[in-house]
Amino acid sequence: MKRNLKLTIAYDGTRYNGFQRLGDTKNTIQEKLETCISRFLNEDIKVIGASRTDAGVHAFEQIINFYTNSDIDLIELRDKLNFYLPEDIVVTSVEEAPINFHSRYWVVRKTYLYRIYTSPIPPLFERNYVYNLGKKLDVDRMKAASKLFIGEKNFQAFSKRTGKKDTVRTIYDIEIIETDKEVNIYVTGNSFLYNMVRIIVGTLIEVGLHEREFDTIIKAFETGDRTLSGFTAPPEGLFLYKNYFTVKK
Amino acid sequence: MKRNLKLTIAYDGTRYNGFQRLGDTKNTIQEKLETCISRFLNEDIKVIGASRTDAGVHAFEQIINFYTNSDIDLIELRDKLNFYLPEDIVVTSVEEAPINFHSRYWVVRKTYLYRIYTSPIPPLFERNYVYNLGKKLDVDRMKAASKLFIGEKNFQAFSKRTGKKDTVRTIYDIEIIETDKEVNIYVTGNSFLYNMVRIIVGTLIEVGLHEREFDTIIKAFETGDRTLSGFTAPPEGLFLYKNYFTVKK
Repeated sequence: MKRNLKLTIAYDGTRYNGFQRLGDTKNTIQEKLETCISRFLNEDIKVIGASRTDAGVHAFEQIINFYTNSDIDLIELRDKLNFYLPEDIVVTSVEEAPINFHSRYWVVRKTYLYRIYTSPIPPLFERNYVYNLGKKLDVDRMKAASKLFIGEKNFQAFSKRTGKKDTVRTIYDIEIIETDKEVNIYVTGNSFLYNMVRIIVGTLIEVGLHEREFDTIIKAFETGDRTLSGFTAPPEGLFLYKNYFTVKK
Repeated sequence: MKRNLKLTIAYDGTRYNGFQRLGDTKNTIQEKLETCISRFLNEDIKVIGASRTDAGVHAFEQIINFYTNSDIDLIELRDKLNFYLPEDIVVTSVEEAPINFHSRYWVVRKTYLYRIYTSPIPPLFERNYVYNLGKKLDVDRMKAASKLFIGEKNFQAFSKRTGKKDTVRTIYDIEIIETDKEVNIYVTGNSFLYNMVRIIVGTLIEVGLHEREFDTIIKAFETGDRTLSGFTAPPEGLFLYKNYFTVKK
């Protein structure tokens, strides 16, 4: 394989069963990309993605890489893929990567964005890209509660059980920004468990509605009990926002 | 009829055959509004709209009014209609209007916005709300050409023939704003002929691509010949943006 190509892509996850092709899962972003790139380059292409996204979750920025024998020009590849891909998946850039670059193994930090629509007037043009809560949130209270999630912790209570043994993850930062009609939550961590961002966000929403006390969060961390954390916020408000990579030689 | 209610609405026109219910036209915004409001208030409601929009055209702001015997609270009406209307039509405000207010007769000036996507990377989350041109435009040349449209003129060459005799309209202003990925054109006039904004925009796009000389525009105005003006830009980039009303006693 003479080249390792790194593509930055973005997608509207509404129609898809998530990023990753897992067993028999149909209609994934990965499947669409592999089918389209394989056909176009006339090779059997396997796509590696930096991050998974659940069904219905979007990406502002997802990083993928694949190996190819093709000597196609990078800009031509970008434009041809954008022509052949469905209009809800877009290739925003194409680069030549070191031959050992692996988007999943090299990613060391990720940021997810969750958009909550708080205006009493429902969203229109953004309606597929926000969670329409329709109520004001106490953002100062949410900011205070968000500190409880920072650091290396066992997030078992904040994930959907998948039988995974290691449920320790590190969250570096949670930034909460309030605008006129929205509250946007940016969560940055090293890696995330299944539904982890959406359960953290659901917990923070309950805090912002004064429907949850801080001590339940502390107890959830202590016991690992999922019933002590908040609801799973719906997928349409969630975006994979940014991926950060290690630099290897 | 004891009350005249003025509603500000916004809509995503993608799925609709335009605003106005005309003869047998099915699936119009007006029809959806009338059905929904009539059912909710249990009265036969006729909706009057300030401006028409063609099939596929959107509205940031459309003004409607209707007469009712109901004494419903304004905020309750807004919230209930937003609950029952399809999610691509939103009521942004509800006001009590003077009993003689008539949104079509009282509107004296309208602004339409046309969004052209010029980035070589296709639009993703905005894809239903822009015309995806995918090429840079010479905006200075478009600004210069836009001056030719200002004033009271016969716009026959810049409209789709409908048998209308009076084709004189006044354009007060055309503002063209270039951003990173888009060129946005705001056209303000007293009233517009069928397809007039889209043909003016199509003509300006051809100017911006250096595919049209200024003298063809001058000749189009002189002759009224539709073949001398530009293509009809597609509906998905067009928004009814603002309506201005006269103040009557």
